[in-house]
Amino acid sequence: MKKILVANRGEIAIRVMRTAKKMGIKTVAVFSEVDRNAPHVKYADEAVCIGPAPSNESYLKGDKIIDVAKSLQVDAIHPGYGFLSENADFAELCEANDIIFIGPRSKAIKVMGSKLAAKETVKAYDIPMVPGTDEAITDISKAKQIASEIGFPILIKASAGGGGKGMRVVEKESEFESQMDRAISEATNAFGDGSVFIEKYVGSPRHIEIQVMADMHGNVLHFFERECSIQRRHQKVVEEAPSVVLTPELREKMGQAAINVARSCDYIGAGTVEFLLDENLNFYFLEMNTRLQVEHPVSEWISGVDLVELQIKVARGEQLDIKQEDLKINGHALELRVYAEDPMNDFLPSVGNLEVYRLPVGNNIRVDNGFEEGMDIPIYYDPMLSKLITYGKTREEAIGTMLQAIDNYHIEGVETTLPFGRFVCEHEAFRSGNFDTHFVKKYYSPSLLEKQHKKEAEIAAKIALKRYLKDQKLLRVPG
Amino acid sequence: MKKILVANRGEIAIRVMRTAKKMGIKTVAVFSEVDRNAPHVKYADEAVCIGPAPSNESYLKGDKIIDVAKSLQVDAIHPGYGFLSENADFAELCEANDIIFIGPRSKAIKVMGSKLAAKETVKAYDIPMVPGTDEAITDISKAKQIASEIGFPILIKASAGGGGKGMRVVEKESEFESQMDRAISEATNAFGDGSVFIEKYVGSPRHIEIQVMADMHGNVLHFFERECSIQRRHQKVVEEAPSVVLTPELREKMGQAAINVARSCDYIGAGTVEFLLDENLNFYFLEMNTRLQVEHPVSEWISGVDLVELQIKVARGEQLDIKQEDLKINGHALELRVYAEDPMNDFLPSVGNLEVYRLPVGNNIRVDNGFEEGMDIPIYYDPMLSKLITYGKTREEAIGTMLQAIDNYHIEGVETTLPFGRFVCEHEAFRSGNFDTHFVKKYYSPSLLEKQHKKEAEIAAKIALKRYLKDQKLLRVPG
Repeated sequence: MKKILVANRGEIAIRVMRTAKKMGIKTVAVFSEVDRNAPHVKYADEAVCIGPAPSNESYLKGDKIIDVAKSLQVDAIHPGYGFLSENADFAELCEANDIIFIGPRSKAIKVMGSKLAAKETVKAYDIPMVPGTDEAITDISKAKQIASEIGFPILIKASAGGGGKGMRVVEKESEFESQMDRAISEATNAFGDGSVFIEKYVGSPRHIEIQVMADMHGNVLHFFERECSIQRRHQKVVEEAPSVVLTPELREKMGQAAINVARSCDYIGAGTVEFLLDENLNFYFLEMNTRLQVEHPVSEWISGVDLVELQIKVARGEQLDIKQEDLKINGHALELRVYAEDPMNDFLPSVGNLEVYRLPVGNNIRVDNGFEEGMDIPIYYDPMLSKLITYGKTREEAIGTMLQAIDNYHIEGVETTLPFGRFVCEHEAFRSGNFDTHFVKKYYSPSLLEKQHKKEAEIAAKIALKRYLKDQKLLRVPG
Repeated sequence: MKKILVANRGEIAIRVMRTAKKMGIKTVAVFSEVDRNAPHVKYADEAVCIGPAPSNESYLKGDKIIDVAKSLQVDAIHPGYGFLSENADFAELCEANDIIFIGPRSKAIKVMGSKLAAKETVKAYDIPMVPGTDEAITDISKAKQIASEIGFPILIKASAGGGGKGMRVVEKESEFESQMDRAISEATNAFGDGSVFIEKYVGSPRHIEIQVMADMHGNVLHFFERECSIQRRHQKVVEEAPSVVLTPELREKMGQAAINVARSCDYIGAGTVEFLLDENLNFYFLEMNTRLQVEHPVSEWISGVDLVELQIKVARGEQLDIKQEDLKINGHALELRVYAEDPMNDFLPSVGNLEVYRLPVGNNIRVDNGFEEGMDIPIYYDPMLSKLITYGKTREEAIGTMLQAIDNYHIEGVETTLPFGRFVCEHEAFRSGNFDTHFVKKYYSPSLLEKQHKKEAEIAAKIALKRYLKDQKLLRVPG
């Protein structure tokens, strides 16, 4: 493998190229017209424009990307995340053109891309799933029997519903029949279809995922878990590894389950198996992401591996030369996604010009970055500017370093998730580890950030005044 | 220990404060008038101006710094490196004022500050030293006997000489008498004193140093070696850990010797024992540096410890809670000192305004930085801007990442050692590991850098032209 094309942009394109270069592999970037001067274009050995800004005219144009790859004698394509990374047709197109797709076979992408097919596939491997009915139901007495088997609280979901509509939580058995009645009639009225699913209700869920890596020779490893419960708008924003709530036994169990999920679909490459974890530490399979994830650096830091390097090695047919029992968790790593969005205004994108853009440096700090000072942030893409990853021997240390690093970012021109990151890191629920996916809903409001802003402005003003008075000799300097 | 004053500036002040903050300790900066807006001042919780720019009116003013420390209820002072860090009187002044000096006791500083006293002190501990006469000699037959005991080649040094004057290398015994004759008469003519020293001549020396750490309870650890042979103007510029030439047995032996040197002077805290290593892997004690060194990050990276944290813990009386046998070398780390100096002009300082100053980020890259874009570089101090440290599982990887990171520094306004760093990392002698302290003398000339510059400019021009032609549709874009 002498040359890799990275079919992506921003920080992940650069991050992939960094490892490729380290391995002595040449790199090709593709870019849309609006990304002409983007850092990932400069970072690559060669770069080719593939079309106008909208993704479906450039970064999603698989055939065009294949053409570029062939004309530049590219051996392999790394899709990054998003865009074509979980597109089974694109993986097939690569295969058909004798270009290595750095990821799983198209079949595995297809199976895991469908929740139903995925559940069907992993069934034989005894993977725990949220208990519930596989099919919609209308018969109340049958439903009651299933519900008592599952155990309360349970969730009734209209099979034609979506977005929370037609959903009811039933706390105890005595309420079941009346709630079921109401759910069916509501569903009938709202959707013209009274059939419902019954599912165990997980009240205080944590989102825990396991990083796996599989080679073509039947070896599958897991690189421990990532805790991704801190989300806003159902998207992760703060991730960490390891999770504070996993015991070594549970870690081992979930790791083994993740490996089995990978085995169930003959997985190859890097993948992530997502689980829901309830208050009693029962875990349930959600889905498998068949690509490298945004939050992979926290796993790299605690396990000491370069996941992109392993992806490349596995893709060129090498055996994984590590053994599961040799992998150890070393310390704690945190990641904050620094998005150009406004935490005071419902986390809406805050695109514009990056007038000032200075990144923190130093020990135990890693920034994976895709932007430069002076750049405009394109409106066409996910507005993630960079990822701030910090490390510590302990979780407390990693949080301390995260807070310092947030203070040492200097961004002007757009709003970012940095103040929200500070809010999370300073919050008692986060610090104590006692949180779930409802963290933002439960604890966050823009007004709290406003208070924090005001307090900081006050402190800054006091310091500035004191310095000014000292400079003017109006205040005595000690010594 | 609730508050630490850092009696230093630049990157090391920030680096120390970073660990202090991580440990929940408040920080105080001191600064000279010219450093009023320096980053280390902004980084601290409190900051006090201690006088005009010249060091002896500010950063070397121990009494003034003690006054500041007392007035701000500081518990301890970290001296960094340089300035007051190896000043026994200042350590004593701290002790007398009930302020913890984060470093060894004044007695150890004093002993190791004198080469003669140091040699005398370590003698009982069987530390190998460059063989030679302890006293000046004029008797040729006695000299010849000593010379043959030492073994050829030997070095004759005029005792009144200096800077290489009156020095002769004698390759074999048959030449000894005539060379000795000439050396004595030369010395008599030049200095009016014919007495000379005889010393073993180390022809191809490497500078290898061992990082040690000692607590107040008799525990002394070593954190392996650093290879510091790449020097310009007798000052280190590229350092790495581990050294490519040390075997595990030799590492163990040198580590033990370093521990013994520390024991010989009842050492406390972080220190470095410097050795000369000859072609046959014989090592000789040079001196002990009784402070944290510029190049400490490479040791931190391969051993996984925070040396400043250990310094602070030891200073407040804690026991070292690591065992020597638990310390393992993990991977390889390189450091390049990024000085504002001109490698095309004899490495003379190139001070001025930092018009552009962008630092590389990403995995396996650590930058310890003391400057900001737009700042003037003061002429009063060492012109080191930052330290670029890279890591890899192998040495080759660390070098590859170093080269990428050098490319991703962007500095305008002053010349720097970055192109020289690239020269080193690309040089066959460095890559193969077959180099010594004469590397710069043997291989480097500004014209080689000029060639490199020209080649790069040519490549850049070609790329720019190609892009221009593509943009103008004068060249077909593949795909």
